[in-house]
Amino acid sequence: MSEKIVLALGGNALGNTPAEQKEAVKITAKSIVDLIEQGKQVIVAHGNGPQVGMINLAMTTAAESEEHTPEMPFPECGAMSQGYIGYHLQNAVQSEFRKRNIEKNIVTLITQVVVDENDPAFEDPTKPIGSFYTEEDAHKIMTQKGYIFKEDAGRGFRRVVASPKPQDIVEKYAINQLIEDGHMVIAAGGGGIPVIRKENDLEGVDAVIDKDFTSEKLAELVDADTLLILTAVEKVAIKFGQPDQQWLSEISLSEVDKYIEDEEFAKGSMLPKVEACKKFVESKEGKKAIITSLEKAGEALKGETGTIITRD
Amino acid sequence: MSEKIVLALGGNALGNTPAEQKEAVKITAKSIVDLIEQGKQVIVAHGNGPQVGMINLAMTTAAESEEHTPEMPFPECGAMSQGYIGYHLQNAVQSEFRKRNIEKNIVTLITQVVVDENDPAFEDPTKPIGSFYTEEDAHKIMTQKGYIFKEDAGRGFRRVVASPKPQDIVEKYAINQLIEDGHMVIAAGGGGIPVIRKENDLEGVDAVIDKDFTSEKLAELVDADTLLILTAVEKVAIKFGQPDQQWLSEISLSEVDKYIEDEEFAKGSMLPKVEACKKFVESKEGKKAIITSLEKAGEALKGETGTIITRD
Repeated sequence: MSEKIVLALGGNALGNTPAEQKEAVKITAKSIVDLIEQGKQVIVAHGNGPQVGMINLAMTTAAESEEHTPEMPFPECGAMSQGYIGYHLQNAVQSEFRKRNIEKNIVTLITQVVVDENDPAFEDPTKPIGSFYTEEDAHKIMTQKGYIFKEDAGRGFRRVVASPKPQDIVEKYAINQLIEDGHMVIAAGGGGIPVIRKENDLEGVDAVIDKDFTSEKLAELVDADTLLILTAVEKVAIKFGQPDQQWLSEISLSEVDKYIEDEEFAKGSMLPKVEACKKFVESKEGKKAIITSLEKAGEALKGETGTIITRD
Repeated sequence: MSEKIVLALGGNALGNTPAEQKEAVKITAKSIVDLIEQGKQVIVAHGNGPQVGMINLAMTTAAESEEHTPEMPFPECGAMSQGYIGYHLQNAVQSEFRKRNIEKNIVTLITQVVVDENDPAFEDPTKPIGSFYTEEDAHKIMTQKGYIFKEDAGRGFRRVVASPKPQDIVEKYAINQLIEDGHMVIAAGGGGIPVIRKENDLEGVDAVIDKDFTSEKLAELVDADTLLILTAVEKVAIKFGQPDQQWLSEISLSEVDKYIEDEEFAKGSMLPKVEACKKFVESKEGKKAIITSLEKAGEALKGETGTIITRD
C-alpha cells in the first residue's frame, strides 16, 4: 500500500491576492505532484487566514457602503474561501498532472467541521478577524451585533471569534470514498466551516478552527499514515531567533510536552502545529507526523530533513 | 436500477441574501429529499445569478473603497458562489436526511466547465454583471480594463460578458465516482467556473455559462435518465401572459423547433431551458427532460404535471 499523507498547507503556499495566489499555487502544485510521482497518496488541507479576512472585509465594506450588499456571516465567508482557494489549487494541480502525463483527478469538497458549542474556546474568543475599528465604532457594533472586540497591538480594535477544537468532519465519507477510488481531494479548507450540532441541524457558527488541528482530525478520519504540516521553515527550532537557537530533527512526545511547558513554540504559529503532530502520533501506533517547508516535503518524507515527532 | 436525475435548480430555489437563502434551501431540501425517498438518484446543479452578482459587486465596491481589497476576477467570484451556495444546500439536505433517518451523504464539488475560446458568444457578450455605471465611468473602465459595457434598460451602463456553451465538465470523473458510490452530489453551480484550454492549463475566463446548458451537459456526462429543470412555473406555456396563453404538458422536438422559431420562449429565461431539454432528449434514446416547479417535481416525475419534452 502506498503511504497516505495529509498535507496541511500554510499561508505561504497561497498568497494574499488572486494574482499572487494563482502564481503561488503553481509552485505548491509542483511540490504536491512530486509526492504523487513518488507514489504517495495525498490529501490536501489548507489555511485561509488572509483569504477569509479579505473576503470578510470586502463583504463588510460593501454592506456598509451605498451599495448595501447583504451582510455576509463569517461561516459563509469561510465557504467562499474554500471555493476560491480550492478552485486555484485544483486548477494548478490539474495543469501539473497534464504536464507530467499523470492520469489522476483532483477535486475540492466544501467541508463543514463540527465543533462543540460547549468548547471552552467560546468563553474566551482570541482569533482576530476583519478590519480595525476605533474604540467608539467597536463599541457601537458590539452593542448592535453582540460581537466581541479586542485591542490589537495598538492598531485599533478588531473583532475576535473563538477558535474551538474540531470534533468531526461532516463530509468524511465522501472524502474517504474519493481517496479510496484514487482521486486526490482538497478538503477542510481554512480548518473547515465551523458548525455546531442542534438536534438534526448543523448550525454555522462565527469561529475559526485552527487548520493544523483540523488537518490532524482529517488525518485520523482518513486513517492516513502521515500528517505533513508545511510551513515557512524547514525544521522546528527551540530558542527560536536567539543566539543559541537549535533546529530539531526529531522531537519525542515527552520532549514536546517539556518544550511546550517552556513556551518554546509561538502561540498561533508553531504551537498548534506541534500540538497537532503530537495528537496524531498519539492517536494510533505507527502514525508519523512531520513539520517542514513546502520545498522540503519530499526530502522530509524520506527522513532527510524536517522535524519528525515520534513516540518515546 | 433507480432513475438517475439531474436537478437544475433555478434562482427561486435559493434567495438573494444569506438569510433568505438559508430559509429557501430548507424548502428546496425537502423537495429534493422527497425524490430520494421515492428511490431516485439525484444530482443537483443550480444557478448563481443573484449570488455571484452580489459577490462581484461587494468585491468591486471594496476594491474601490479606502480598504483597497484586491480586485476579484469574475471566475473567482463564481468559485466563491459555489462554496457559498453549496454550503447552504448541503447543510439543509443533511438536516433533512437526519430528520427522516436517511443514511446518505451529500457534498459540493468545486466545478470548472470548459468552454471554447472560439465560441461565437465571445464576439457578442450579452450577459450583464455587476453594478450600474454612468456612461462616463463606464467609458473610463472600458479604457482601463478592456471590459465591454452596454446600456441596461435605461438604468445605466453595465458590464457584459459572454455566455459560451459548456463543452466539458473538468471534475466529471469524481462526480461519477461519488454518484456510483451512492453519494449525492452538488456540482457545476452557476453553470460552472468557465475555463478555456491553453495547452496543459485551464484558464479562468470572464463569462457566464447558462446553468441550464451546463445541467444538460452534466446529465449527459453522468448518463442520467432524466433532466429535471426547476423554475417558477409548473408548466411551459406558449402565448405566455396573453389572453390565449396555453400551458403545455408535452412538447415534441419538432414542436420545440416551431415554438422557438415563433419566439414563444423568452431569451435568458424559458428559451435556454427548452433548448437544454431538447439537446438532452436528442442526445440518446430514452432520455427524458421535464420542466416544472420545485414543488411539483415529484408529481412531474410521475407524469402528473410539468412539461415533458419528447422525441417525435
